[in-house]
Amino acid sequence: MAQPLHTIYDINNYTFGVKEPKALHYENEEEYCQHLKEKNSAGLRCVVRGLILTHRHGHPYVFFLQNGNRFVLPGGRLRPGEDEVDGLFRKLRNKMKPEDKPIKWDVGDCIGQWWRPHFTESLYPYLPVHITKPVEVQKLFIVSLPESCAFSVPKTWQLVAIPLYDLYTQRDKFGFINSLVPVLLSRFLFASK
Amino acid sequence: MAQPLHTIYDINNYTFGVKEPKALHYENEEEYCQHLKEKNSAGLRCVVRGLILTHRHGHPYVFFLQNGNRFVLPGGRLRPGEDEVDGLFRKLRNKMKPEDKPIKWDVGDCIGQWWRPHFTESLYPYLPVHITKPVEVQKLFIVSLPESCAFSVPKTWQLVAIPLYDLYTQRDKFGFINSLVPVLLSRFLFASK
Ligand SMILES: [Zn+2]
Ligand SMILES: [Zn+2]
Ligand SMILES: [Zn+2]
Ligand SMILES: [Zn+2]
Repeated sequence: MAQPLHTIYDINNYTFGVKEPKALHYENEEEYCQHLKEKNSAGLRCVVRGLILTHRHGHPYVFFLQNGNRFVLPGGRLRPGEDEVDGLFRKLRNKMKPEDKPIKWDVGDCIGQWWRPHFTESLYPYLPVHITKPVEVQKLFIVSLPESCAFSVPKTWQLVAIPLYDLYTQRDKFGFINSLVPVLLSRFLFASK
Repeated sequence: MAQPLHTIYDINNYTFGVKEPKALHYENEEEYCQHLKEKNSAGLRCVVRGLILTHRHGHPYVFFLQNGNRFVLPGGRLRPGEDEVDGLFRKLRNKMKPEDKPIKWDVGDCIGQWWRPHFTESLYPYLPVHITKPVEVQKLFIVSLPESCAFSVPKTWQLVAIPLYDLYTQRDKFGFINSLVPVLLSRFLFASK
């Protein structure tokens, strides 16, 4: 019945480095949909993403990977049959962990999901009526960070922390789906340390 | 870690009646804000609302109370010091229960909340920065229904069940905040019976 408590730590506790770049398969959502269509894999594509939070004098911020004007929550596609949590840990390691140091993070509950019924940019928070073969599902999981750690991000991306009020109010900049992250987080109580 | 399972029953299992009308204090959001300002009670106004679901051949629907073109989730204001769940039960009884029959419903988790920082219509899914005395908070709770029951609604209102896809896509009709109910529900797995 209670609202879940989630502890977040000051952004100054974290350090940010770079590692070898990864090739970008696509530069925007339109190219991504084109890419999906070309691959046109038989089954449902499962994507997992992490909601990783920090704070600046008590205001919650969410980490995004930025490339130009694209903002994505860290994560990616599961391998066939891969467990969701294992897959998310693998993706987070690839995208945020230094080569030589561990990060003691923890994947928590699924806090929302988005369905892509067709090979287009439209995502829905439910499987639309009479869609029997959706193209993709994206599941978002809340991730707990340790009190402090070092991040390292492939050179093609920048790790940015965005405050909830910017995310929610600057829909054109961050995209409609990203702007709803604060809505998915609204039931949480945050303890800022 | 798992996504919560919520059982929903066919809308044809429920019956709908009317009871004595209640006076309407206000007819739209603007009047409501005016009303808040006039009362201007010292403390934070706490509102609780229920998310009550049913289905029509497997598609989830959410119950709203409709008056003209206003759609509100059933609920209302807590009394000073009243427990949230007790208060929501009280409001649901007033607004949906026949005088002479019980309903075996259950109030579950808080699935989201909205803050009103000022005496205006703007609601936010977080407490905006540096607001120390917000006017109102609205908490939404998921409610489980029994397999079948009778509802009875004050004559001033109509009880309507709205499918997730209408809610999410017809923002102008239902209002932006109501249109995000499917987003708050996206992490649930529904078992339709
Ligand atoms: Zn590729
Ligand atoms: Zn501040
Ligand atoms: Zn009044
Ligand atoms: Zn159907």
